[in-house]
Amino acid sequence: MNSFGRLFRVSIFGESHGECVGITVDGCPAGLSLIAEDLLPDLERRKGGKQKGTTPRQEDDYPFFKSGLFNGKTTGFPVTILFENNNTRSEDYQKQRSFPRPGHADWVAHQKFGGNEDYRGGGHFSARLTTALVAAGAIAKKLMPQLNIAAVVAEINGETDLEKGLQNAIDAKDSVGGIVECKVTGVPVGLGEPYFDSLESLLAHAMFAIPAVKGVEFGAGFAAAKMFGSQHNDAIENMDGKTATNHAGGIVGGISNGNELVFRIAIKPTSSTPKEQHSLNWETGNIENFSIKGRHDLCVALRAPVIVEAVTALVLVDCMLQEQFIPRVIK
Amino acid sequence: MNSFGRLFRVSIFGESHGECVGITVDGCPAGLSLIAEDLLPDLERRKGGKQKGTTPRQEDDYPFFKSGLFNGKTTGFPVTILFENNNTRSEDYQKQRSFPRPGHADWVAHQKFGGNEDYRGGGHFSARLTTALVAAGAIAKKLMPQLNIAAVVAEINGETDLEKGLQNAIDAKDSVGGIVECKVTGVPVGLGEPYFDSLESLLAHAMFAIPAVKGVEFGAGFAAAKMFGSQHNDAIENMDGKTATNHAGGIVGGISNGNELVFRIAIKPTSSTPKEQHSLNWETGNIENFSIKGRHDLCVALRAPVIVEAVTALVLVDCMLQEQFIPRVIK
Amino acid sequence: MNSFGRLFRVSIFGESHGECVGITVDGCPAGLSLIAEDLLPDLERRKGGKQKGTTPRQEDDYPFFKSGLFNGKTTGFPVTILFENNNTRSEDYQKQRSFPRPGHADWVAHQKFGGNEDYRGGGHFSARLTTALVAAGAIAKKLMPQLNIAAVVAEINGETDLEKGLQNAIDAKDSVGGIVECKVTGVPVGLGEPYFDSLESLLAHAMFAIPAVKGVEFGAGFAAAKMFGSQHNDAIENMDGKTATNHAGGIVGGISNGNELVFRIAIKPTSSTPKEQHSLNWETGNIENFSIKGRHDLCVALRAPVIVEAVTALVLVDCMLQEQFIPRVIK
Amino acid sequence: MNSFGRLFRVSIFGESHGECVGITVDGCPAGLSLIAEDLLPDLERRKGGKQKGTTPRQEDDYPFFKSGLFNGKTTGFPVTILFENNNTRSEDYQKQRSFPRPGHADWVAHQKFGGNEDYRGGGHFSARLTTALVAAGAIAKKLMPQLNIAAVVAEINGETDLEKGLQNAIDAKDSVGGIVECKVTGVPVGLGEPYFDSLESLLAHAMFAIPAVKGVEFGAGFAAAKMFGSQHNDAIENMDGKTATNHAGGIVGGISNGNELVFRIAIKPTSSTPKEQHSLNWETGNIENFSIKGRHDLCVALRAPVIVEAVTALVLVDCMLQEQFIPRVIK
Repeated sequence: MNSFGRLFRVSIFGESHGECVGITVDGCPAGLSLIAEDLLPDLERRKGGKQKGTTPRQEDDYPFFKSGLFNGKTTGFPVTILFENNNTRSEDYQKQRSFPRPGHADWVAHQKFGGNEDYRGGGHFSARLTTALVAAGAIAKKLMPQLNIAAVVAEINGETDLEKGLQNAIDAKDSVGGIVECKVTGVPVGLGEPYFDSLESLLAHAMFAIPAVKGVEFGAGFAAAKMFGSQHNDAIENMDGKTATNHAGGIVGGISNGNELVFRIAIKPTSSTPKEQHSLNWETGNIENFSIKGRHDLCVALRAPVIVEAVTALVLVDCMLQEQFIPRVIK
Repeated sequence: MNSFGRLFRVSIFGESHGECVGITVDGCPAGLSLIAEDLLPDLERRKGGKQKGTTPRQEDDYPFFKSGLFNGKTTGFPVTILFENNNTRSEDYQKQRSFPRPGHADWVAHQKFGGNEDYRGGGHFSARLTTALVAAGAIAKKLMPQLNIAAVVAEINGETDLEKGLQNAIDAKDSVGGIVECKVTGVPVGLGEPYFDSLESLLAHAMFAIPAVKGVEFGAGFAAAKMFGSQHNDAIENMDGKTATNHAGGIVGGISNGNELVFRIAIKPTSSTPKEQHSLNWETGNIENFSIKGRHDLCVALRAPVIVEAVTALVLVDCMLQEQFIPRVIK
Repeated sequence: MNSFGRLFRVSIFGESHGECVGITVDGCPAGLSLIAEDLLPDLERRKGGKQKGTTPRQEDDYPFFKSGLFNGKTTGFPVTILFENNNTRSEDYQKQRSFPRPGHADWVAHQKFGGNEDYRGGGHFSARLTTALVAAGAIAKKLMPQLNIAAVVAEINGETDLEKGLQNAIDAKDSVGGIVECKVTGVPVGLGEPYFDSLESLLAHAMFAIPAVKGVEFGAGFAAAKMFGSQHNDAIENMDGKTATNHAGGIVGGISNGNELVFRIAIKPTSSTPKEQHSLNWETGNIENFSIKGRHDLCVALRAPVIVEAVTALVLVDCMLQEQFIPRVIK
Repeated sequence: MNSFGRLFRVSIFGESHGECVGITVDGCPAGLSLIAEDLLPDLERRKGGKQKGTTPRQEDDYPFFKSGLFNGKTTGFPVTILFENNNTRSEDYQKQRSFPRPGHADWVAHQKFGGNEDYRGGGHFSARLTTALVAAGAIAKKLMPQLNIAAVVAEINGETDLEKGLQNAIDAKDSVGGIVECKVTGVPVGLGEPYFDSLESLLAHAMFAIPAVKGVEFGAGFAAAKMFGSQHNDAIENMDGKTATNHAGGIVGGISNGNELVFRIAIKPTSSTPKEQHSLNWETGNIENFSIKGRHDLCVALRAPVIVEAVTALVLVDCMLQEQFIPRVIK
């Protein structure tokens, strides 16, 4: 299903080349000041075409509020936001329909939905829907002004010098993957629970909802598997629970411990590589060479940080409401 | 909350040194033959004390069915299973209560639950509850005989020679972490969805519910972040969707593509290391040296594979029911 | 929260005098032929102003599909439908803001949402949102062509001669309540469960989501409380489970028994009566006389049948999906 | 499924003639003092055999806490409670298996669960499971000491003189139905929402989870359908929202308005009437006369009030947590 959250619940809809993409935010406390301008900075960060290596597709990405606001504040009822799709070039996709694109959902979608899927631009699978996530995330952030959620691209194509990583892609005429790191300060102690609602479970669930994410690790993460317990354990330093190190990434026993929240996301290279590929033509049944048309990012990781921040905020705001750190009416 | 699943829903309860741990499985189709012996092989695999590096605590781990069975078959109503705790040594824990153990949930639990948590043996945070998960997982597996779910320890302390990794721990008188790899064959095309119910989201959610898990990656995972798109893309080889490579780990666009499901789990070193530690004594407010008592695994990763298999099965069986690959009554 | 359903999940949004009302239908099987015209007959039935006793407010009530359709069929992804609000007269409501209208949500909304509620035309509380329910219900009906869901007004103001009941209202210059009866044929055996997911629980939950509903009864309902068991019990007549009588209303043990589903809904008189009322003026703090402006139905029960049918269909389609009577892809 | 609630979530399990019935309460705040004696008064009220017209089956109904308590207080983790079944006479049921009992779930359960249902004593359908509901309800009540939830039998067999109603049954050698009325004082303003989470929706959902309930009405309920708006509207009398009348039963727009909560429940006559019945024998395929054996109540309504109170408390405590009227840790 296409919704997420227990008390602060988002539901996404829309397709890349349909009329719009959008999101409904249910459970947002009443009384939050909210105007389109509150969302624009993050929406701007998400946009492609602003930096080397991102798609030249340009959308206005202007959020149209359809419900849930009155006199510039949230009412406590569902906030629905629409983004119009104006800048689509669907003909690019119709041409290459004979090839289910490797790395893309073409083949599985066709099987699962019996050929009824909207394949244009990836349809509902498209990263275009992350626009909606970013909008909802900006609302969530506004409800938690005491938090600082900051994600950055930490690596491209294995390089921490990001320019170099990107140049690798340009030189190879290929797409590349990357790593995004997210840190959150100001998180109160007590979010999450052991087992199914561990904060790691909730955050990982949300992270893997972002297209192209293939790995998530908290704190030392995979490196922890190589460590000794005496190295990995974070000694507690004072009565506030501050730890000397932060190998746990701010989560112990599934619960935030008040230290910085730290996690990293592995993002695969854009499936729509400019390189020629050799794969099934399902009209002929043969393996053939083909090239992908359309406008695509060389490295989707570049656009991911603000999306990672957004879904992080969606998880945290829900936990904060459950733990009553956020009231039902904002004064 | 302590439950998971949409149509096949498990709810766990119990504490390490309380009377029992247990699980309720709701939504299990009627008509499945089920006796305690069906669960014993996996329960046996989970037990400690059988191999070097695991805790000598021995429990019978015998599953007592309390409901949902009649004439040796499931009725379609909730199946509740209890495991008695007989072999507890709570005095170990009372002695060291002045130190919130680093890496453990002592400190966060105390803050979150206002000092009401059952701290003995880690209470509800204890890996003792994974016994219940393994039992439920065995039921889920039995509903999907066409699947082969197999997890193994792939690394200990960074060594693929597992004996060597474990010897590192024994030599260092320290605990160590490890990597568990899980592969599933027989998965039909079409489980999962883009965005919030991506199969990666659901599996990661479940994996991070396992204590000590700090990272999850699918297919090439973090390595994908270093690859070019032309390398990472899995070319489709035939009309059944078989791919030449499997960097995607069997999931594309959040949906299973019929290839082998492959993912890896990073497990941190056991927090209860035998090494002396230097951390807060919350009775004195000072940083002091202390040692952990109790019976513990040197490497919890050793016991993890069957647990990883179990939660994998819980996720898959729920998806299989939603996609109607499993009927509501087993004939 | 503003959503309902486990596998076929609807989420409503919008306000009476905001830009629009709408609904997202998640979990609709792919492949269902769907165009606006499929929804128009039921939408037309819901409209006011067509018959004596209903509000003269006229909206086009044209459903704009914003997502989830491609080539005239559902894709398996969320279907979002918007209805524009064009015909609003908000000034009516601003004038009478000093009186929280008895029977309406003015007072409770103000307390609960801290004064941030959109009070114009009842905001999110308005029956205007039932337009969206009717649209979703029409989709649900289309998925179950074998069912016949038919609701009618059975009584107005205690009269089974409906013209007479309505004339009572006109004569008294007052609003009146009524009873709606709903019958469904073609329901398969096996929908619902004992206890929390009883078919009565689910249907009643949905019925009380309709504004102005104050009572729900199944089969003999409240009359059953006066009967003997030997009278109320429905003798089974044949191996198909057909019963001689239907005091149970087609549901036994929370499960549909294959007989006609029958239930009745009590609808209170329209709160916006044309009569002068005597109630609190919260600006003066005094009890004063006042009259309600705006365009209102004398008897909202008149417009209720199609809404009752719609939410009935929403409940049944969800159960049908869970019991696998409807496939995931419509062929 | 067999669970209910968003933040305070109960899950029931067990069968009438199985080993036990039980319930898990998830989401109970930590720090609540809780011992078996807290539950006994309500459990005692539910027991049969204490008054004329109730079943002579006697169970100890002693609640065994299996988890979630430590040092006499709730820990914040799931509280699982078991009730042993000691006093079963399953042979009564085996004898009459050839007749699917009218009014009972025998026939539908057989169809839905493919003959795998535990039919003894009604299995999971049995009112024996209401023992578990009553236990959970008693916990919920203890979390809301400011509320007074009181249900009574208002009518038996149409008589407000209850002795007379019961005598009707004894004289007719038949079972009878009744009406239960529930009133709650101390409810704060603001529980519930318009549409799907209306307080009426949630309460009705829970009420119809009680076996034998066939109708629910709030305030004036079905009588409202015969009233004029000017009669039904509850004039607001002061700034606290107190109303002169209470035809709304304390809920307006789906939200509690701070006045007394009032609703009535129609309970059908016990299906297991002592009268001979004429119904299908599914072994012979013929309609035959038969009589029901076993120990049964002449009027289940007599035992219903404490169950109605319990599920009322379950609904209210969940709403109270969502609206933050109850903290996460009880001090």
